[in-house]
Amino acid sequence: MAITVVGSVAFDSIETPAGRRERCLGGAATYFSLSASFFTDVRVIAVVGEDFGRRQEAVFQARNIDTRGIEHTAGKSFFWEGSYLENLNEAKTHNTELNVFAAFEPKIPEAYRDSEFLFLANIDPVLQRRVREQMPDVKLVAGDTMNYWINDHRPALLEVLKGLDVLLINDTEARILAGNNNLVQAARAVLALGPHTLVVKHGEYGATAFFSGESFTPKVKSAQHHPFRAPALPLEEVVDPTGAGDSFAGGFFGYLASQGELTPAAFRRAMFYGSVMGSFACERFGTERLQELTRKEIDDRFILFRELTHLD
Amino acid sequence: MAITVVGSVAFDSIETPAGRRERCLGGAATYFSLSASFFTDVRVIAVVGEDFGRRQEAVFQARNIDTRGIEHTAGKSFFWEGSYLENLNEAKTHNTELNVFAAFEPKIPEAYRDSEFLFLANIDPVLQRRVREQMPDVKLVAGDTMNYWINDHRPALLEVLKGLDVLLINDTEARILAGNNNLVQAARAVLALGPHTLVVKHGEYGATAFFSGESFTPKVKSAQHHPFRAPALPLEEVVDPTGAGDSFAGGFFGYLASQGELTPAAFRRAMFYGSVMGSFACERFGTERLQELTRKEIDDRFILFRELTHLD
Repeated sequence: MAITVVGSVAFDSIETPAGRRERCLGGAATYFSLSASFFTDVRVIAVVGEDFGRRQEAVFQARNIDTRGIEHTAGKSFFWEGSYLENLNEAKTHNTELNVFAAFEPKIPEAYRDSEFLFLANIDPVLQRRVREQMPDVKLVAGDTMNYWINDHRPALLEVLKGLDVLLINDTEARILAGNNNLVQAARAVLALGPHTLVVKHGEYGATAFFSGESFTPKVKSAQHHPFRAPALPLEEVVDPTGAGDSFAGGFFGYLASQGELTPAAFRRAMFYGSVMGSFACERFGTERLQELTRKEIDDRFILFRELTHLD
Repeated sequence: MAITVVGSVAFDSIETPAGRRERCLGGAATYFSLSASFFTDVRVIAVVGEDFGRRQEAVFQARNIDTRGIEHTAGKSFFWEGSYLENLNEAKTHNTELNVFAAFEPKIPEAYRDSEFLFLANIDPVLQRRVREQMPDVKLVAGDTMNYWINDHRPALLEVLKGLDVLLINDTEARILAGNNNLVQAARAVLALGPHTLVVKHGEYGATAFFSGESFTPKVKSAQHHPFRAPALPLEEVVDPTGAGDSFAGGFFGYLASQGELTPAAFRRAMFYGSVMGSFACERFGTERLQELTRKEIDDRFILFRELTHLD
């Protein structure tokens, strides 16, 4: 089943202990799309400026990602500059330029309308909501956000949360959103805001899914009440963690969309595929690793991750 | 098979967001013994002062722990005061008084000599080494340490590491010991110092075992080359994390000692039992939870932890 994703398509300048890259292709929707494209059809809604040319377009084309919803407009694309020199787990933002995203009015191409899965990648919650409202009949809606929207745009974000089935955020974001440092208590508070399922990403430690009393979608066969944790593989070398969370989301949601039935077992495997894709994203700068990845490498690492915590 | 453990038996004054306790029974060997006692026979080597009386002795007796190796001497027992007010994952030490441990000369009771497992709990590496040297024929030796010994007593600690099969430390300690912030690279550096197996404890995220090329003991049927990760259950309420790492070690080593053969499968289950015992320790102040625990509760939580990451 096809996924429509709305989010940033951007240029990033990144510095890590492994080196520096200027203006490489980035953005939450880019990482998400590349990652999800290994599992299912992906359609992107975004806006780019005149600096987004054939070379960038070719990255999406090579993965058969539908870019008809990427609007080209005058001006510069979204730009982010950050570094991970002191702490590989947390980016230090040096500069964010919204550029063409400042006046973006998302429109859904007719060809996207039969998408059964919708992902609202990290972006202004006002834009997330506009896309959500234009696609009321999707089967499953998931989304991401970040500290900035949680702290400074809370009312708009709370509106988005009401329309989500699955929210994917990291530990810090969950704690800030709930105003509670205990992860289990924070999860319960977040689940009361709308989503049936909360996936908390722990970086190198994997991710944990929490569920509200009800099952996360009417199609799930039996409710899951205990949390579920997917581990991550300890990596020999983390070159650049940018986009790891978006790649997790792409693997998770892409795998889920590729499954006929949304069973708890499929959900658990989706969590593992999320971890797998997040780990690949870190191995090179920007989207380099995702661009040259194969499905065989993905499935081999899935087996490795399963082995990593398997008891019998 | 019986375990002999050497380490601190102490009094702790602890403050956490949940409250404060004055001079409750603590010490690495205490937590380790109580935890391991649910799986196998445990024998303690330590020294206590005149403040250690019948009430403290009764805690060990209730779990059938052999205390004949606890020397009683004039003076006060080891004392530690710390708090977790800002960060539940890291204690802030306010006061440490070695007291009777300052002049401790560990002696192994005759009745302990047939112990096949030896655990060197966190304590001065000079004392760890003296005990190790007096028990050259044990089947498996594991140990713990902390930042203070790593930073300020490195030569003595390196001698201890040469005689260890398994080292159990936390993320920060592994990184400091290796002088490398990447966990996989740090693990490899630590394994080169002596132990065949390194268990890195991640607090609320569980623990990861790394293995050197050889299997961790000659009795293991087949070598394990990939790391193994045991998750921890996200806890609803962490009352007091003191002793969680020692309780992990007790569950891990106690379960291992209870198994006839040291197979990779037994090792993996031991990692899960470690996580289980660490999680229980946090639920009340000091050793309160370990004192009233039952084996049924332990096995129930083991099943829950297995379910937490189980795929099929």
